[in-house]
Amino acid sequence: MSSSESPDTSFEADFLIHPEWLIPMTEKGLILRGQSLAISNNKIIAIDATDHLKKSCTAQQEITLDNHALLPGLINAHGHSPMALFRGFADDMALQPWLEEKIWPAESQWVSEEFVRDGAALAIAEMLRGGTTAFTDMYFFPEEIAKVTLAANIRTIQAAPVLDFPTVYAQDADEYIRKATELNDRYKNNNMVLVAFGPHAPYTVSDSPLKHISTLANELEIPIHMHVHENVHEVADAITQHGNRPLERLNELGLLSHLLQCVHATQLEDVEIEIMANAGVTVVHCPASNAGLASGMCRTQDILDAGINLCLGTDSAASNNELNMFNEMRQAALFGKTSANNASATTAWDVLTMATVNGARAMGMEDALGTLETGKLADCVAVDLDHVNSQPVYDPVSTLVYSVQSSQVNYVWVDGKLCVAHGDVLTMDTEAIKHRAAEWAEKIH
Amino acid sequence: MSSSESPDTSFEADFLIHPEWLIPMTEKGLILRGQSLAISNNKIIAIDATDHLKKSCTAQQEITLDNHALLPGLINAHGHSPMALFRGFADDMALQPWLEEKIWPAESQWVSEEFVRDGAALAIAEMLRGGTTAFTDMYFFPEEIAKVTLAANIRTIQAAPVLDFPTVYAQDADEYIRKATELNDRYKNNNMVLVAFGPHAPYTVSDSPLKHISTLANELEIPIHMHVHENVHEVADAITQHGNRPLERLNELGLLSHLLQCVHATQLEDVEIEIMANAGVTVVHCPASNAGLASGMCRTQDILDAGINLCLGTDSAASNNELNMFNEMRQAALFGKTSANNASATTAWDVLTMATVNGARAMGMEDALGTLETGKLADCVAVDLDHVNSQPVYDPVSTLVYSVQSSQVNYVWVDGKLCVAHGDVLTMDTEAIKHRAAEWAEKIH
Repeated sequence: MSSSESPDTSFEADFLIHPEWLIPMTEKGLILRGQSLAISNNKIIAIDATDHLKKSCTAQQEITLDNHALLPGLINAHGHSPMALFRGFADDMALQPWLEEKIWPAESQWVSEEFVRDGAALAIAEMLRGGTTAFTDMYFFPEEIAKVTLAANIRTIQAAPVLDFPTVYAQDADEYIRKATELNDRYKNNNMVLVAFGPHAPYTVSDSPLKHISTLANELEIPIHMHVHENVHEVADAITQHGNRPLERLNELGLLSHLLQCVHATQLEDVEIEIMANAGVTVVHCPASNAGLASGMCRTQDILDAGINLCLGTDSAASNNELNMFNEMRQAALFGKTSANNASATTAWDVLTMATVNGARAMGMEDALGTLETGKLADCVAVDLDHVNSQPVYDPVSTLVYSVQSSQVNYVWVDGKLCVAHGDVLTMDTEAIKHRAAEWAEKIH
Repeated sequence: MSSSESPDTSFEADFLIHPEWLIPMTEKGLILRGQSLAISNNKIIAIDATDHLKKSCTAQQEITLDNHALLPGLINAHGHSPMALFRGFADDMALQPWLEEKIWPAESQWVSEEFVRDGAALAIAEMLRGGTTAFTDMYFFPEEIAKVTLAANIRTIQAAPVLDFPTVYAQDADEYIRKATELNDRYKNNNMVLVAFGPHAPYTVSDSPLKHISTLANELEIPIHMHVHENVHEVADAITQHGNRPLERLNELGLLSHLLQCVHATQLEDVEIEIMANAGVTVVHCPASNAGLASGMCRTQDILDAGINLCLGTDSAASNNELNMFNEMRQAALFGKTSANNASATTAWDVLTMATVNGARAMGMEDALGTLETGKLADCVAVDLDHVNSQPVYDPVSTLVYSVQSSQVNYVWVDGKLCVAHGDVLTMDTEAIKHRAAEWAEKIH
C-alpha cells in the first residue's frame, strides 16, 4: 500500500459490514451505496466508503452482504410477549368478549413465572429472527421477562403492569406500583432493560393510582405506557361512568406529557390530537391488532401531520397473530392510506421512520438508537432482497416495507453483538423454545 | 404381513404424502390427522388413514411431513403477472395518477413480448414459491404468458385484454376480441391454460365491444374478467359520462351472469349486491391493492352473506407489491373485519375458502379443483408450521391465515407434478429470472 493510499488512522473493529444498500434513517430518502459500517464493542464506530474502511479497519469478522439492505434495528413499541403462547388460541372475536371469555380466564388459569419465561422466549425468538432489536412489553412478572431478554440479548422496555384488581402478580395497585419501582431500581443505568409504568388502561386503573404513577414517573423520568382509546366502546363506557372521554380524564389527572405513551388511540377527535401534540405524548399504533379486533382505524396521517411521535407496535401474538415488524410496517401504510382515503398518506418512509427513529424517541434513546450513525449503539439488521418476491429493486425502502418477508432478515446485531446469522438465532435455543410452546398449548387447549 | 392385515386392493402412486394436518376444505372446520394423500399422474387417487395407505400403496416417492399442513393449492383470482417488473416502481400514489403518470407511460415505452415473458416468469416463480397453484391474469400478449405458465407447470386463466384504444398488442377492440377468441381456440380442452375475455374496465371499453364479448362469452362458455367499481372516482365519472353507475350499464348490456368476474368492487350499494347475487356474478377481492391505492374497502362480509362467489386476488406486484396469497388472506380477514366493524366477520375459514373453493368455482373447475378429494386434480401445498412465528398451533387454519409466511411453503404440486420442494422452485430457473428482472429495472428506472 503506497503512502498516498494510506488511511489517516487505522483501527480495529469487531465487525466490518459491506451491505449493498445502507439506510441510515438520518435523512429522508438517503440511501447509501458503496458504504460500509464498523462495529466495536456495543457501538457503531465508523460509516465510510467501503474502499476506505477496507484499508483503515482491521476487523475480527468482515461480512460482505451483496443484495442486502442494512438498516437500524426495528423497534416494536407495544406488546405482551408471554402471550405468544396464546397465538391462535382465540381468533375472529371482538376485544371485550375476546378478553372476558377467552384471554382473562386462560390467564388466570395458566399465568405463572414459568409461563411468562416460556412465552417471552418464544416472542423474543420470533422478534430477533424478524429484525426487531428492541421491544416495549407490558405483562405480569416483568422481572422474569427481563432475565429472558438479557440472555437473548434483545433490548426492552418493561412496562410493569398496574391494575386496580388482584392477579397472580400483585394484590392491589400499591403492590403493582411498588414492584414497578423496585424493577426500575434494579435496572437503573442498564441500557438493555429499561423500565416504565404500565397502567393497563383507563378502565382498569382508577384515579388515585394514576396520580401516584404520574408523580413517580416524573420523579424517575420513566415512561408511562398505557392502552388508551383502543375502541369506541372504551370511550362510550367512560363517558357513562366518568362523564368524560378517557383522554380528558388522563389530562385532568396530569398524565399527558412527553412521558406518556398512548397505545392504540383509534378514537381521536381533532382537539385530542392537538392536546396530545402540545403535551408531547407518544402514540403507539398497532394496525394489525386493531383490525383483528375490529377496534377501528388509527388516524395515522393526521397524527403524523400534528407532529406527534408516532411509533409502531405489533401488540401481542394473541391478537396479531405475529410479531413481525415488516408486516406491521406494511399494515400501517395500507391502513394509513385507507383511513386517510389518500394513497399518498403514510408512505413507506413514514412507516420505516415510525419503526426506527420514532421508536427510539419513545424509549428516550434518540441520541443512542434509531439511526445508523457513528457513536450510536450498534442495533442493526441486514435484509436479503435477492428473492423472487422482492425483485427487482427500484427503491430498497419500498422493497423493505411492501415486499419483504421477515424471513429475509439474515443478520441482526443488538448492542454490537451478533444475535442472528444466516437467519438463525444464535443467542437462543429455538428448538427447545418451540417444544415448550407446544407443551403449553397441549395443556391450555 | 398376515392376510388379516392385507389391504383390500394394492395400487401404485407417484407420491404418497403424510402430513401432520390434512385440510381438505370439503367441510367447514374439518382438519384431518393421521391421514395421507396419494397422487398418481395428475390426480389425487386416495385420501385415507396413513397406516392403511402405507400398506396398500406403493409410491415412487413417499414424503413424511411432520409439522406440515397439506391444503389445496391457493388460487390467485386476479393479477397482471408481467407487471412484476414494475414492483416498487411507483408507490404511495392514487389509482389515476399512478396509471396515467407512471404505469401507462412505462408500459407504452417498455411492454413487448420479451417484457411479458420475463415479467410473467418472475411473477410465476413468486407465486409457485408461495403456494399459488393457479392464477387469473390480464395482460398484453397472453399467448406469451401461456407459454411461460406451461413451462413452469402452473395453472392459469388468461383473460385476454380488450380495450377501445390501440396498444402494442392490438389496434382496436375488434382485434383484441379476435385475438382472445384465437387464444381460446388454441387452448380448448387444456386444463392448464384456460382463456377468458378481459375487457379492462367499464371506462376503457365501450358498449359495442362489451355486447360482442357478452355474446361470444355465452357461446364459448368462458368467463368475462373485468375491473368494476374499483374506486369512487370510476363510479362518479361514469355517472357524469353515461348517466348511470357502471354496474347498471353492464347490467343493461346483458353482461351480468355466472360468467362475469367483477374485480375490486369496492363501491357497492345494497341493491347492487342483490343484483350480482341473483345473476351469479363472481367478485374478486384485492384487499392489499385496494388499500395501497386508497381505492376503498370491499364489503366482504355483506358479499359473502349474499351468497356471492367471493374470490381473492393479489392484483399486480406494481400495486401490491407482492403476489403472496398468505398475506392476501390475512389482509382480507383484517380489512373484512374493519369494513364490517365486526371482529367475527371474514374469518380465517372464510378467507381460506375464498382462496381455494371459491377460486375454483370462478374458474368453472369446482368439480376438479379447490378441495382435496379423491378424483380431483392434484394441486396441493404443504406448509411447514414449525417456525417460531407460527408456534404453538391451536388451529392450523388460524396459523395458516394469521401467522404463516409464504416462505414456509415447502412443497407444491400442480396437476400432480412436484413444482416446489424444500422451498425451491423445481420447474424454473429462479436465478436467471431475478437477473433478467434486475436488467429490466436498470433500463426502466
